[in-house]
Amino acid sequence: MAILVVGSVAFDGIETPSGRVERVLGGAATHFSLAASYFTDVRVIAVVGEDFTAENEAVFTNRGIDTRGIEHTSGKSFFWAGSYLNNLNEAQTLKTELNVFQSFSPKIPVEYQDSEFLFLANIDPVLQADVRAKMPKVKLVCGDTMNYWINDHSENLKKVLKGLDGLLINDTEAKLLAHDTNLVKAADKILAMGPKSLVVKHGEYGATAFFSERSFEKNGTPPSKVFLPFRAPALPLSEVVDPTGAGDSFAGGFFGYIASQKELTPAIFKKAMFYGGVMGSFAVERFGTERLAQLDPKEIEERFALFRELSHLE
Amino acid sequence: MAILVVGSVAFDGIETPSGRVERVLGGAATHFSLAASYFTDVRVIAVVGEDFTAENEAVFTNRGIDTRGIEHTSGKSFFWAGSYLNNLNEAQTLKTELNVFQSFSPKIPVEYQDSEFLFLANIDPVLQADVRAKMPKVKLVCGDTMNYWINDHSENLKKVLKGLDGLLINDTEAKLLAHDTNLVKAADKILAMGPKSLVVKHGEYGATAFFSERSFEKNGTPPSKVFLPFRAPALPLSEVVDPTGAGDSFAGGFFGYIASQKELTPAIFKKAMFYGGVMGSFAVERFGTERLAQLDPKEIEERFALFRELSHLE
Repeated sequence: MAILVVGSVAFDGIETPSGRVERVLGGAATHFSLAASYFTDVRVIAVVGEDFTAENEAVFTNRGIDTRGIEHTSGKSFFWAGSYLNNLNEAQTLKTELNVFQSFSPKIPVEYQDSEFLFLANIDPVLQADVRAKMPKVKLVCGDTMNYWINDHSENLKKVLKGLDGLLINDTEAKLLAHDTNLVKAADKILAMGPKSLVVKHGEYGATAFFSERSFEKNGTPPSKVFLPFRAPALPLSEVVDPTGAGDSFAGGFFGYIASQKELTPAIFKKAMFYGGVMGSFAVERFGTERLAQLDPKEIEERFALFRELSHLE
Repeated sequence: MAILVVGSVAFDGIETPSGRVERVLGGAATHFSLAASYFTDVRVIAVVGEDFTAENEAVFTNRGIDTRGIEHTSGKSFFWAGSYLNNLNEAQTLKTELNVFQSFSPKIPVEYQDSEFLFLANIDPVLQADVRAKMPKVKLVCGDTMNYWINDHSENLKKVLKGLDGLLINDTEAKLLAHDTNLVKAADKILAMGPKSLVVKHGEYGATAFFSERSFEKNGTPPSKVFLPFRAPALPLSEVVDPTGAGDSFAGGFFGYIASQKELTPAIFKKAMFYGGVMGSFAVERFGTERLAQLDPKEIEERFALFRELSHLE
């Protein structure tokens, strides 16, 4: 079933120990939708400027992604430049030019109205809330955010959190959002803010899902059931070429797999965590969208099997 | 089958966000042998001073640990004081008093000579090499080390590494030892230094085992076989009371389980990684040796099942 994703479609300038690119296609919605496109139909809401070419758009459409919700406007696309030279786990932002995103007002094409899954990628929580309000009938909503919104836009963010089935963030963001340095306590506090489930991404160490008694209520699971957390591995890689978009790719694999299934059970949630790790592991193998734009579905299944072997006793 | 462990038996002063203890029984060999004692017979080589009481010794003997190799001498026992107030993942050392360890020359009691497993806990590599040389017939040797020996005693340490079946260290130590910030590359370099297998402990994120083609040669496994790394989880805990000895307890659970088995296969290595995590998770629940000194074996099996559920798809 189709996922609607709202988030940035952008250009990135990136330097890592493996090299440097001046300007490649990037943005949270881009990485998310490419990763999710291997599992289900994806529709994108974003805004781009005059510098967004037919070739850029083809990266989406070649993967069958519906780009009718990408608004073309005058001006320049969102541009971000970052360096991982000192730390592959955390980008040092060198430049952020919001450009066309500064005055973006999301419009939902009529063809997108029947989307059953909604992903609110990392973007101004005001825009996330706006799109959420325009899609009242979606079956499942997950979202992401980042330090900037947690620190300086927390009231707006908290409104978004109330309506989420799942929140996907990293360790630093979780601890910052909860004002707690213990991850288990932080997770409890975040689940009390609204999200029914929380996925904390640990970069090279994988990810942990924390559940509330409401995590699977839409599937008819009794709300009294207590669920253990779940830990999914990441693949030990001898070279991380470009970490940009790894988290968005994780979210795309995770939510794409969930949207491809009939219902959300604990077993499906766990498999989704593995597919998230799988797509994240591909994403970092090349700069920008290069690797995720042209995967063979067979490679995905092979790597899923690898993740299983990497973490399972038998 | 019996494990002989050489390492520190000491007293610790510890402060953490959960509290503070002025002086509790500690030391790498102490935590290791308590954890291993739930799986197999354990014999300790160490030196203590006049401040080591019958009550301290009973912590070992109550768990059936053979203390005939703990030499009592004049002077004070090794004392370490550390603080985790700023960072639960890394102690800030406040005081190190080697005391009786300064002039320690390990003697192996005749009753220890038939030990088939040897663990070289974190201690001066000169002492590790000495004990290794005195136990030429052991079946399997694993060991630990720390930043201090890696930085300032690297030539001595490298001699020890050549003779190890398995090295257990943490991320920081692995990257320091290999002079490489990528864990996979660091593991390759360390395996080339001698250890047949490498276990890298990630604290709250679990541990990863890296194998060489020689990892299971003693079991008759053909040396051409390539083994994937293996990732074992750690238990998400809402309170880490005292991280001191978590790594030694991991090593004790890991090596204790291996010593309790007939042969070292990949499947047994993987289960050993889980038992390592299990014993580490108990260790940090109380200060010092309090928790590991009095576990119910049933608790260990229950927690093993929890680790499995935490990380397995089905």
